[in-house]
Amino acid sequence: MIDSSRRAILASLGAGMMLSGMSGSAATRPARKIGYAIVGLGSYATRQIMPNFARCDHARLVALVSGTPAKLDQYGADYGIPRTHRYSYADFDRIRDNPDIDIVYVVLPNSLHAEYSIRAAQAGKHVMCEKPMAVSVAECEAMIAACRKAGTKLMIGYRSRFEPYNRLAIDLARAGHVGRTQIITADHGFPIRPDQWRLDRLLSGGGSMMDIGIYSLNAARYLSGEEPVEVTAVEATDRSDPRFHTVEDKINFLLRFPSGIIANCVSSYSSSHNGYRVSGTQGWIDMEPATSYAGQVMTIRKDGVTAPRTLPAPAKNQFAGQLDHMAECIISGATPIVAGEEGLADLRVIEAIYRSAADGRSIRMSA
Amino acid sequence: MIDSSRRAILASLGAGMMLSGMSGSAATRPARKIGYAIVGLGSYATRQIMPNFARCDHARLVALVSGTPAKLDQYGADYGIPRTHRYSYADFDRIRDNPDIDIVYVVLPNSLHAEYSIRAAQAGKHVMCEKPMAVSVAECEAMIAACRKAGTKLMIGYRSRFEPYNRLAIDLARAGHVGRTQIITADHGFPIRPDQWRLDRLLSGGGSMMDIGIYSLNAARYLSGEEPVEVTAVEATDRSDPRFHTVEDKINFLLRFPSGIIANCVSSYSSSHNGYRVSGTQGWIDMEPATSYAGQVMTIRKDGVTAPRTLPAPAKNQFAGQLDHMAECIISGATPIVAGEEGLADLRVIEAIYRSAADGRSIRMSA
Repeated sequence: MIDSSRRAILASLGAGMMLSGMSGSAATRPARKIGYAIVGLGSYATRQIMPNFARCDHARLVALVSGTPAKLDQYGADYGIPRTHRYSYADFDRIRDNPDIDIVYVVLPNSLHAEYSIRAAQAGKHVMCEKPMAVSVAECEAMIAACRKAGTKLMIGYRSRFEPYNRLAIDLARAGHVGRTQIITADHGFPIRPDQWRLDRLLSGGGSMMDIGIYSLNAARYLSGEEPVEVTAVEATDRSDPRFHTVEDKINFLLRFPSGIIANCVSSYSSSHNGYRVSGTQGWIDMEPATSYAGQVMTIRKDGVTAPRTLPAPAKNQFAGQLDHMAECIISGATPIVAGEEGLADLRVIEAIYRSAADGRSIRMSA
Repeated sequence: MIDSSRRAILASLGAGMMLSGMSGSAATRPARKIGYAIVGLGSYATRQIMPNFARCDHARLVALVSGTPAKLDQYGADYGIPRTHRYSYADFDRIRDNPDIDIVYVVLPNSLHAEYSIRAAQAGKHVMCEKPMAVSVAECEAMIAACRKAGTKLMIGYRSRFEPYNRLAIDLARAGHVGRTQIITADHGFPIRPDQWRLDRLLSGGGSMMDIGIYSLNAARYLSGEEPVEVTAVEATDRSDPRFHTVEDKINFLLRFPSGIIANCVSSYSSSHNGYRVSGTQGWIDMEPATSYAGQVMTIRKDGVTAPRTLPAPAKNQFAGQLDHMAECIISGATPIVAGEEGLADLRVIEAIYRSAADGRSIRMSA
């Protein structure tokens, strides 16, 4: 696998920093931060991601891609991005000629993820892509193949994996802190407002499952550390509600894992949910909210005693942690902990969830 | 329908009390409380039910039925039950000749519920039966038919319907206090100890579903006020665990209701759960514990504000409330709020849950 931009970066950093093992001390910090281009200047990109480059050690914002010239002007000015580093979709492929861009972060509507990720890889850029990775397994596989062929890395924006309480929950659950895990419940939803691209199947690829239910699914997978062997789902959508003419409202699902864990998951566009609970033989680990932008609350019940579990404020929030992780992977040559295969694994289950709900039967997953 | 014992009781009470509308004041309180025979002197009967007759206004304990002479001696002495009112199973049918017994309360292992309920009805007695009502729909139907033929009442021991927080949750949910209900999650389970009759299918008729999962199911039904139209379930049981040689461990299920509510339910013999949440368009009503013997905790989130909801201590706990309800129904001629049809409705769903898990498909319920 050729990783041309890694070689370029290593050359620019010099051998001394690499030998230090990236300890992060001032003496060894790389002189050149890894450059991101943000593709799609919607609310999530502009309010959650872009402000957090200021908190990054290894990542910086170097370019913007948008179809709206006013946004390019506004955010270009706000973040000091020169006109040479602002792109429309028409000249997106010119990113190839910009050596400041190492990573292209795709924050477009879901149905555009595959196209822009593949074009970014073909331009020789590493790819960060928002979740859901794409709207089908086939698209995910094409994205992975394109990045493999180009020798570029691919990471999916599963930010919770960089959030300290979620990391602790994973460690505690997998270490059997409350005994062997038996049941995981994971609930995500919100009452969606009308007139959003998320409600247009051509852009979103699906309803609540694609947007918010994926948090329940991904949590069940990262808390168990397993892949489901059986997927069973039930949908309830009021098609007379103008919000739900083309996408589903509620779709709840049961996942059976090889070890015998059952995950019981909620996905809703009509009610508010943000939490999960890992129930083991000796108690449970509860998080609510669990996957919010901030404010996680963890409660643990063990051997009959219930208590809150608090962590010190993290040095870096989940957004900065995610941006830096991909940068560090490029510097070190490591594979992201949430690579394309992670996004693909979710889409495999999502396709099974839709099929199960449509057919009224459980779907067995092949290994 | 002939209701001979109601006539006898009305005669014994006199017309004045009935005209007063059973206001419960000292002047109008019936001189004669309704007499219960308890059948089966296990832990639930002796620790939860029998001590609560002391808190009843209309019910009293008058007879005991057990296969263990030492228990009859012990509890007979404790509760002042004369030897003439203590029965073995061999002479159970002699209850027919005891006019002090109005109601037979069956607290036996599940597979004996139908037989003893039917024999009680044939002896001319009203029947209170613990949940699950029986181990099959067919048995439930036979019990209902036997009581109808005998002209006696039939009530199932769904004690939560007499617990103030659960009653409030029902009222709030059905009144749309947090908007129209969208999702109900209901989780019940506990790590079961070995060597219990509940782990012997011949006595229990099933595993966690029959014992503790029925609380999740019943809550989903009483909180929605609807009957499910589609039932989907997934089971996970480690058959190498000696506890689970004949009965299931975990069986989780999804219920779709006519209004579009989906209930996500947990039933487990390997992990601790006792709670439910009704999520509507504007918030949620949470109870944890929900169906415990005492100590219910209610939390309501509405329009973005989360707050506990507390009630004054009830004049009568759920056990006494349940015992008195059946007595009052006999006095007034009313039908219990949890009659045989309520137990039958649960068993219909339980049979569908087992069938769904076995067949790997959703079961459509006929109206």
